[in-house]
Amino acid sequence: MDLGAELHDFARMLFPICRSITGNGIRETLRLIGERIPLKTFEVPSGTQVFDWTVPKEWNIRDAYIKDSSGEKVVDLRRHNLHVLNYSAPVHATMLLSELKPHLFTIPEHPDWIPYRTSYFKENWGFCLAHNHLASLRDGEYEVFVDSTLENGSLSYGECYIPGQSSDEILISCHACHPSLANDNLSGLAVATFLAEHLSGHNHRYSYRFLFIPGTIGAITWLAKNKETTSHIRHGLVLTCIGDRGSFHYKKSRRDNAEIDRAAEHVLKHAAPSSKVLPFSPYGYDERQYCSPGFNLPVGCLMRSVWGTFPEYHTSADNLDFISPESLAESLSVCESILDVVENNFCYKNLSPFCEPQLGKRGLYHTTGGHSPDQQINARLWILNQSDGTNSLLDVAERSGLPFSLLKNAAELLKNGGLLELIDPKQE
Amino acid sequence: MDLGAELHDFARMLFPICRSITGNGIRETLRLIGERIPLKTFEVPSGTQVFDWTVPKEWNIRDAYIKDSSGEKVVDLRRHNLHVLNYSAPVHATMLLSELKPHLFTIPEHPDWIPYRTSYFKENWGFCLAHNHLASLRDGEYEVFVDSTLENGSLSYGECYIPGQSSDEILISCHACHPSLANDNLSGLAVATFLAEHLSGHNHRYSYRFLFIPGTIGAITWLAKNKETTSHIRHGLVLTCIGDRGSFHYKKSRRDNAEIDRAAEHVLKHAAPSSKVLPFSPYGYDERQYCSPGFNLPVGCLMRSVWGTFPEYHTSADNLDFISPESLAESLSVCESILDVVENNFCYKNLSPFCEPQLGKRGLYHTTGGHSPDQQINARLWILNQSDGTNSLLDVAERSGLPFSLLKNAAELLKNGGLLELIDPKQE
Amino acid sequence: MDLGAELHDFARMLFPICRSITGNGIRETLRLIGERIPLKTFEVPSGTQVFDWTVPKEWNIRDAYIKDSSGEKVVDLRRHNLHVLNYSAPVHATMLLSELKPHLFTIPEHPDWIPYRTSYFKENWGFCLAHNHLASLRDGEYEVFVDSTLENGSLSYGECYIPGQSSDEILISCHACHPSLANDNLSGLAVATFLAEHLSGHNHRYSYRFLFIPGTIGAITWLAKNKETTSHIRHGLVLTCIGDRGSFHYKKSRRDNAEIDRAAEHVLKHAAPSSKVLPFSPYGYDERQYCSPGFNLPVGCLMRSVWGTFPEYHTSADNLDFISPESLAESLSVCESILDVVENNFCYKNLSPFCEPQLGKRGLYHTTGGHSPDQQINARLWILNQSDGTNSLLDVAERSGLPFSLLKNAAELLKNGGLLELIDPKQE
Repeated sequence: MDLGAELHDFARMLFPICRSITGNGIRETLRLIGERIPLKTFEVPSGTQVFDWTVPKEWNIRDAYIKDSSGEKVVDLRRHNLHVLNYSAPVHATMLLSELKPHLFTIPEHPDWIPYRTSYFKENWGFCLAHNHLASLRDGEYEVFVDSTLENGSLSYGECYIPGQSSDEILISCHACHPSLANDNLSGLAVATFLAEHLSGHNHRYSYRFLFIPGTIGAITWLAKNKETTSHIRHGLVLTCIGDRGSFHYKKSRRDNAEIDRAAEHVLKHAAPSSKVLPFSPYGYDERQYCSPGFNLPVGCLMRSVWGTFPEYHTSADNLDFISPESLAESLSVCESILDVVENNFCYKNLSPFCEPQLGKRGLYHTTGGHSPDQQINARLWILNQSDGTNSLLDVAERSGLPFSLLKNAAELLKNGGLLELIDPKQE
Repeated sequence: MDLGAELHDFARMLFPICRSITGNGIRETLRLIGERIPLKTFEVPSGTQVFDWTVPKEWNIRDAYIKDSSGEKVVDLRRHNLHVLNYSAPVHATMLLSELKPHLFTIPEHPDWIPYRTSYFKENWGFCLAHNHLASLRDGEYEVFVDSTLENGSLSYGECYIPGQSSDEILISCHACHPSLANDNLSGLAVATFLAEHLSGHNHRYSYRFLFIPGTIGAITWLAKNKETTSHIRHGLVLTCIGDRGSFHYKKSRRDNAEIDRAAEHVLKHAAPSSKVLPFSPYGYDERQYCSPGFNLPVGCLMRSVWGTFPEYHTSADNLDFISPESLAESLSVCESILDVVENNFCYKNLSPFCEPQLGKRGLYHTTGGHSPDQQINARLWILNQSDGTNSLLDVAERSGLPFSLLKNAAELLKNGGLLELIDPKQE
Repeated sequence: MDLGAELHDFARMLFPICRSITGNGIRETLRLIGERIPLKTFEVPSGTQVFDWTVPKEWNIRDAYIKDSSGEKVVDLRRHNLHVLNYSAPVHATMLLSELKPHLFTIPEHPDWIPYRTSYFKENWGFCLAHNHLASLRDGEYEVFVDSTLENGSLSYGECYIPGQSSDEILISCHACHPSLANDNLSGLAVATFLAEHLSGHNHRYSYRFLFIPGTIGAITWLAKNKETTSHIRHGLVLTCIGDRGSFHYKKSRRDNAEIDRAAEHVLKHAAPSSKVLPFSPYGYDERQYCSPGFNLPVGCLMRSVWGTFPEYHTSADNLDFISPESLAESLSVCESILDVVENNFCYKNLSPFCEPQLGKRGLYHTTGGHSPDQQINARLWILNQSDGTNSLLDVAERSGLPFSLLKNAAELLKNGGLLELIDPKQE
C-alpha cells in the first residue's frame, strides 16, 4: 500500500473522534497514535498552575441537540462533531428561537458549512450550524440539550522520545485537540506519527521528541513541566495544515535565521519552488509558546496552506476530501529532507587547502579537458573551496545554490578520498 | 477657523516682506513669528568669524528699477521682490541694453516667470525678470537704479526653546531668508511656528529648539555659537518646501539609520504611502551643516516636492497658490506624528516572558476561539513577544509592520495590566 | 597605428603557434611577449612535486595526420593546430574507421567547427575534427600518425615584475597554453602584455607582477614556488576572454567584497553599464587556485563573454575574427581604470569638518546662488562630507554614485586648497 494512502487512512481513522483540549476524545486519539509509535501519555490535573495559566476542568460530552416543537432534532451532535460549541457547558432548556440565536454560530459567507467555534476559558454553551440551516428554522419554541460535563479531571498529552547519538534534541510538535477537522490538524498528527515511526528504526545524530498536545494550553503545560528539557532543543518544527493541495509555507522562528529556518528554506527552494518562507509573527500555532521571549526556541512552523487564508479553515469543509494522499506523502518527504539537512550539516576541513587537489588522479574529475563540469564535480569543488573550517555544508549549499543532498554525497566521497576531515562532530 | 487655512494665512502675511540673509526683511519676519511663540532673536555683527565663514555686511534695499529712455519703469522692485538680484550692490547708471544684459537674469524655459537669484558672497548688481519681458525691451539707453545699502550691521536669527522633562533636545530648523517664495520656505516657517505653538501647551519628554535662520550662513553662525549645545541634540528635522501638493519626501541624515530617520520612514509609510525616503546627500538645505562630519547630527529633512525637481522652484511661480491649506495641515500632522514616535519610543520588558500570558482572563483577548485576531490583539502579542528588553516600540513597529500608534496604546494597556514594565525611561 | 589594431596584430602573431601546457609552443610565445616587456622565464623540471600535483612530462609535436586508404591526408595538423588532441601520445597504426572513432572528437551541434580537447593527465591519443568532416569519411582502413614526444623536460612560464613605490603587489595573471584560440586566451595575453608595457614607463604606488603561465598546472606551480610572495598580493586580476564583442563580466574573488571586487564593480558600472558582476564560484580559470582556501587571495577574473556560454568557446570558431580591435582596446582601458581606482583609493581627512568650508571664496563654488550644483561641486561636497578619516575615495564613490575619477580630481583640488589631508598613505 502506498505511503500517501496509508497516511490518509490514518487521518480517516482519527476523523470521527470528538476531540477537545481535554477529555476522552484526545485520550482515544493518543491511544491510536500509540499503536504505531512508543508514546508515553501524561495526565495533568485540572487546576494545576502552568505559568500564567491554569489547567482547565476536563470536558466530556455524551449528547447535544436542538429539538423543534414537533420533537424533531433539527441540530444533532451525532450528525457532526462541530455542531456543538467546543467546551460547551451543560444546558437543558426550552426557549424561543430569538432567545436561542445568541448561542448559534454560522458563517454567512459559506452558508452550507458548519463553523468550528470554541469557548475554553469562558463558560458558555452553544451550537454551530450552516447558515442556510439556521435560515430554515421557524420562529417558535425549541428544546436545547447539551449533555456535557465540565469537571475536575486532567489534561492529557502524548510524548514520543526517540534517543539519538546525542542528547541534543529536535522537537516536533503538533496539536491534537481539533474535532473532525482534517487539515487542521489530522494531517499534522498523521505526518508526525509516520515520521516518528520512520526514525525509530534508524541511527541518527539527534534525539527526537514528538509532542501530541492540545493547542496553546497543552504547549504551555508541557513547557511549564519541562523547562529544563528545553535547553536540549537545537531545532524544532510545529506541523500543521500539511495535508491540503496548496503550496508549502514555512514560518520562521523568532530567531529569524536559526539553522532550522535555513534548512527549511533550502529544502523548500529545491523541492518545492512554489513554496514561500514567511517571517515570524506571534500569532499562529504552538510556535507562539516555543518562541515566547523567555524560551526563544529555534522552532518554525511547516504548513501547506496557511490558517485563516483558505475558506475551509475551521469549518466542516476541512474534511477528508480536503486533504490528499499525495500531499500528505510529499509533506512527510519534505520533513525528512529538512531533518536530513540538520542531521548532516557538518563542518568539514579541506586537508589540501593550497590550490585544488588533483581530483583526476583520484577518479573524481572528467579526464578529457575542454568542456564544462557537471554538478557532481561542481559540488566537490565547492566543498573543497569553502571548507576552511568556518563553513558548514548548509553554508556551502546556500552560497553555491546546489542542493544539500548533492553536497552531502560529495563530502562523503571527498572524506573517503582523504581530502576532507570532519571538524568536531560532537560539537555539531 | 480650520488649521490649514490658518497656516496658509500665516504664510500670506509673511509673503510680501523682502527678505534676505540679513537686514530688515528677516527682522520683520522674526517679529511676526514672535507674536505667536516665545521667540528670542539674536544679532551677530558683520565681520564675525564663524568657522570658515565671515558674517557678511547687512543688506537693505529701498528701491530698484530700470527706466527706459521715455522714463517708464520697465522693471520695478515694487511690483515683485524677486526683480532685484538678492544682495545687489547699489548702482545708478545709464547704459545701453547690450551693456545691461549681463546683469539681467531670466528663465528661457519658463518665459513668464521671474527667477530668484542671489549674489551674497560676490559683490554684484542685477535684475531678474520674465524672459518674455526681456524680449520686449527695445535696444537703446536705460537708467538702472538700485537703492540698496551693503554696510556693517548684523545677521539676525530667532530661536524658540521649549523645555521638556529632559535636557535632551529635538532641533527643528528652517530657513527664513527667501523673499516672496511660498513653498520655499514660508511653508516651513508656518509649520514650524504652529508646531512650536502646539508643543508649548503640552508636557513632553524632550526639550525642543526651533531655529528660524538665514540659510547656510545662519546655520553656520548658530552652530559656531552653540557648539556645546549640539551635544544635547538627539533628533532633528529641517523643514522646507512642505506646503505644495506633491508627495512627501524625507531625506535621511548622514547617519542613514538614526532614530529620526526610522521614525520618519515609519510614519510616512503608514500615513502617506506615496511618500519616498531619500538617501543622504551633502547638497540641500541646512542639514548640510548639521550633518557636516564634525557635527554629524541626526538631522533629516522633511519636504513635499524636492527642491530643484519642480519647475516653480526659485521662481515667481512659487507663490501662495502653489501651496495649499490642506497640504500645510497634513505636513503639520506628519511632523507631529514623527515627533510622537521619538517621544514614545520606549523599551519595555515582558514581565511574563515564559509562554504567552493569559490575555483572556484580563479581558485583552477575544473570548470565542476559532477565528483570526484583530489588530489590537496582534499589537499586544507582538509587544509581549518582542519585549525582551532589547527592542524599542519602533523596533516592534518595524518588525511587525503595525503602526506605532497602535503599539503605543497596546503597550500602555499591557503596562497597566501589570504585564510590561518600562526599562530605564530616563535613558530613553 | 591605433591601439586596438596593435593589440589585434599582437594576437595575430601568436595565433599560429601550437601551444600546450609544456613544450616549445609556450616557450616561443613567451619569447615573443618578452620582446615587448621585461619578461623573466622559468623552467620547472618534469616530475617536480607542486602541492598535490606533479609537473608532467614535456609534450612536443612535429606532425599528425590521418591518411585514408588512397594515401590522402584526410586530417592534418598542418591545416589546424586543433586537429590533434592536445597532449596526444605518439601513435602510428592502421585501423578500421570503427576502431578509430573512439579517438575522434567532434561537436555535432556545430558541425563545421573543430573542437579543442586535451588529455594532459591521462595518456591518450586522438584527433579533433568538424562533425561534417567525420561524416564524410568512408568506412575502411586509415593510417593514423601522431609524431609527438612525451618526455622528461620542463614546464615553462614567464613573469614580469614592475616595481612600484611599495612592495605591496598587484597580480595580473593569464594562461598562455591554448593553441590557436583567439579569445581564449590570446586576448588576455595581448591585453596583459600591453598593460605591462604601459605601466613600465610610469610611477605607481603598487608593484605589479604579471604571470604568463599554463592554465591550472602553471598557476599551481607558481604558487608552490612562490608561497611567501603571495603575502604581498593586495589585489589581483585574471584576464581571459576579453577580446570578443560581448559585454564585460567580472567574477568576484572568494572574499566577495575585496577592494578589487569593489573597484571592478564600480568601474564597470560607470564605463560599461551592460556589464555584469558574477559571484565567486570555484570553477573557471586560475582564480580557482589563487582563491583556494589556503591562499584566499583577493583575485577576481575579468572577462567579456563568459567561458562555456558562447558557442565558439573551445572551438575553431574562436579565431581572429571572433575578437575585435575595439574590444581589445576597450578591455585594456577598463583594466587601466580598475587599477587607477586601487592605485588612488586613499582615505582623506577634512581639515575643516565643522560645517562646510566656504568653497566660494576659494573659487570652488558657483558664485550666483539659486540653482542646482554641477557634478564638480557635488564631488567636492561629497568628499568633504564623508572624509572623516574612515571613508576611502571608493567608499565615497559607492555612497555618492559619482565616478571615482571625478572624486579623485576633486580630492586633489581640495587637498591643494588646504581643505583635505591624506591619511597615512603608506598604510594605504
